[in-house]
Amino acid sequence: MKKLIGNAVVGQSGGPTAAINATLAGVIRGVKENLDGGCIETLYGMRNGVEGLMQELLIDLTAYFDCEEKLSLLEHTPAAALGSCRKKLPKLGEDDAFYESMIGIFKKYNIRYFFYIGGNDSMDTVAKLSAYTRTHSYEMVILGVPKTIDNDLVGTDHTPGFGSAAKYIAVTTQEIIRDCAVYRIPAVTIVEIMGRDAGWLTAASAIGRVVNGIEPDLVYLPERTFDMQSFFADVRAALEKHPNVVIAVSEGVRFADGHYVGEGTQTGAKDAFGHAYLAGTGKALELAVKAEIGCKVRSIELNLPQRCAAHIASATDLSESVATGRAAIKCAGEGVTRCMITAQRADAEEYKIEYLPKDVSEIANKIKFVNDEYINEKGNHVTDACCQYLLPLILGEANGFYENGLPKHLIFD
Amino acid sequence: MKKLIGNAVVGQSGGPTAAINATLAGVIRGVKENLDGGCIETLYGMRNGVEGLMQELLIDLTAYFDCEEKLSLLEHTPAAALGSCRKKLPKLGEDDAFYESMIGIFKKYNIRYFFYIGGNDSMDTVAKLSAYTRTHSYEMVILGVPKTIDNDLVGTDHTPGFGSAAKYIAVTTQEIIRDCAVYRIPAVTIVEIMGRDAGWLTAASAIGRVVNGIEPDLVYLPERTFDMQSFFADVRAALEKHPNVVIAVSEGVRFADGHYVGEGTQTGAKDAFGHAYLAGTGKALELAVKAEIGCKVRSIELNLPQRCAAHIASATDLSESVATGRAAIKCAGEGVTRCMITAQRADAEEYKIEYLPKDVSEIANKIKFVNDEYINEKGNHVTDACCQYLLPLILGEANGFYENGLPKHLIFD
Repeated sequence: MKKLIGNAVVGQSGGPTAAINATLAGVIRGVKENLDGGCIETLYGMRNGVEGLMQELLIDLTAYFDCEEKLSLLEHTPAAALGSCRKKLPKLGEDDAFYESMIGIFKKYNIRYFFYIGGNDSMDTVAKLSAYTRTHSYEMVILGVPKTIDNDLVGTDHTPGFGSAAKYIAVTTQEIIRDCAVYRIPAVTIVEIMGRDAGWLTAASAIGRVVNGIEPDLVYLPERTFDMQSFFADVRAALEKHPNVVIAVSEGVRFADGHYVGEGTQTGAKDAFGHAYLAGTGKALELAVKAEIGCKVRSIELNLPQRCAAHIASATDLSESVATGRAAIKCAGEGVTRCMITAQRADAEEYKIEYLPKDVSEIANKIKFVNDEYINEKGNHVTDACCQYLLPLILGEANGFYENGLPKHLIFD
Repeated sequence: MKKLIGNAVVGQSGGPTAAINATLAGVIRGVKENLDGGCIETLYGMRNGVEGLMQELLIDLTAYFDCEEKLSLLEHTPAAALGSCRKKLPKLGEDDAFYESMIGIFKKYNIRYFFYIGGNDSMDTVAKLSAYTRTHSYEMVILGVPKTIDNDLVGTDHTPGFGSAAKYIAVTTQEIIRDCAVYRIPAVTIVEIMGRDAGWLTAASAIGRVVNGIEPDLVYLPERTFDMQSFFADVRAALEKHPNVVIAVSEGVRFADGHYVGEGTQTGAKDAFGHAYLAGTGKALELAVKAEIGCKVRSIELNLPQRCAAHIASATDLSESVATGRAAIKCAGEGVTRCMITAQRADAEEYKIEYLPKDVSEIANKIKFVNDEYINEKGNHVTDACCQYLLPLILGEANGFYENGLPKHLIFD
């Protein structure tokens, strides 16, 4: 294989996370450490993903990151330092002009390497660009670098960004349980957690089970049909045991007829990928419990902080996110293309991860649901095996940098 | 003055905070360090405040806290380790039997010292018990030890627990602003913050102004009448400047007619002290902006985590909370009674706090509002002076103890 020499571009896409900048830092580190074997000359960052790329909004990252301090600060900055987008590329064959103008930009900047950090929708972008360039003559390396708090990408043990969100959820759940325990009157607290299709984040609320025995009384994932009567029975049974019942529920739980539990209180809005915008599952259940059981009830939507709370990021997640970015550069140097970097967990007692590229067309637009053996028989909690799978991902506290009591973040101009 | 020798009891009351256990630890430390000059023999803890006291649910804290490790762990445990209550004592003259049975319990356990850690409602308890014992023959020392995230007690510079909640709010706001900055489409994000009457917590969202210049675009406190048309004008002006508008609003903002902004979407429930239960100010404004301006809007209710997030507690707040507990024991040893321990800020360049007792009857049932000079003329933001007042309170990160990625908390049996 002949060595492809040229410039590279990296972008961030989809929802922000506490770790996506650590992955970007890994990509930059990889280039600076020459893991590509000298194939990459200048590394550009595209502002706001492919949207900014099409407008040639590029920043020279090789020049910008001229010291360890900036890279280290980037690793502890939440959200997406380069900006993000939710742009969906045209279907192949429907708008060749779009792809040709993108390739025109690649040619103009001599870009031969394309790295795209994102989740399911971003892998759709990587897969489409991979397919287009395969059949149209511009030789380049295209790699997807995973990132999603949802942990719902197939072919990988887990995704960068998930561990930090999971840690935020696990820590916050412990604190909420502690808060709810102070009164003696019967009360139900419903914690609504992100996860449109897969229940990984909601499952993380229960990690305490294998650490200190403190966990929500009930946990409902979208992988199981939600039944209101069974739910009321579960809540009544929990209230029999102790007065302060805490329930974790995924925003994405649905009734048997396919309707979302939160549908009654939501707007019906959809995002650019046609996903329904959900909000209000916790509120809907709060009102239902109030009407049916009549005790004190409240709902808490963890909302944005669960994806951007860098101050309680998982040290394991951040270091793995950096490693994933580095692995992408190494693979690129080896000529690997049209792949996503995956994490493979060694089948050993000690937790260990290896990074392997896999064909991105086998990954995009699929969803990895929570394994059957991770959900209990009644469908109202997770199993020990689930907690054991999750635990290594939240280990370590990634204490960032502070200035006058507030976190320091890296912000481009 | 003759020295009063006997046992002591301490309780926690009202809403949980990340620092109320640090104050309890300070009370215990004070006794162990003999700051009372040997007046106190055994220190009891009442479970669930005066409710548990009336049922003689007492725990021997002198015996339980036999090592530094336990005290240190208690200091980093959120909520109220002894449990809390929202019990309102009978009006004086209306139910002497209640007070007599409480005094009966004091006599039974030879309790001569009563410490009650709490906020406004708890100081009402302290004031009533002070008044009752003044006119009925049982000699004892009664002291209020402040705690409230709301910072709304008069006569004191600030309250233990506030600094940690303020830090959580300031840090989370910075992270939310970072998160919201990733897209380029116009979007309004409304962050609803606790504070029924006073806007101190909401003001804390803006501390970044004097640290790194990052703050919400608009800040609305309950100290100013909320006008929907001015609000829309403010939002439109903010959207002219940049696409990602972040707004902090107190749950307690009201219209000129006295109705809460969130009233439309709330339950009308009241707590035991007759305070309206508020929820939904952010949601109400979200719907209003969506209808009026039509851009992407979302609301985030910070909810319980803002009062129990010990993982991002302010080191200054925790150490001052301990100091307040210690000061209570010192005052008790000096025979000070019917007072609350206050914090007085030295009028000097360097931030310094002195602890002084003040007559609790002058404090209970009053509200300290945000100073006029801390709110801008338009009533849609805070001033630099406000941020300068708040900044010292959030300094330092009180990193707690972790075990397998999760915080360690002290839990009595």
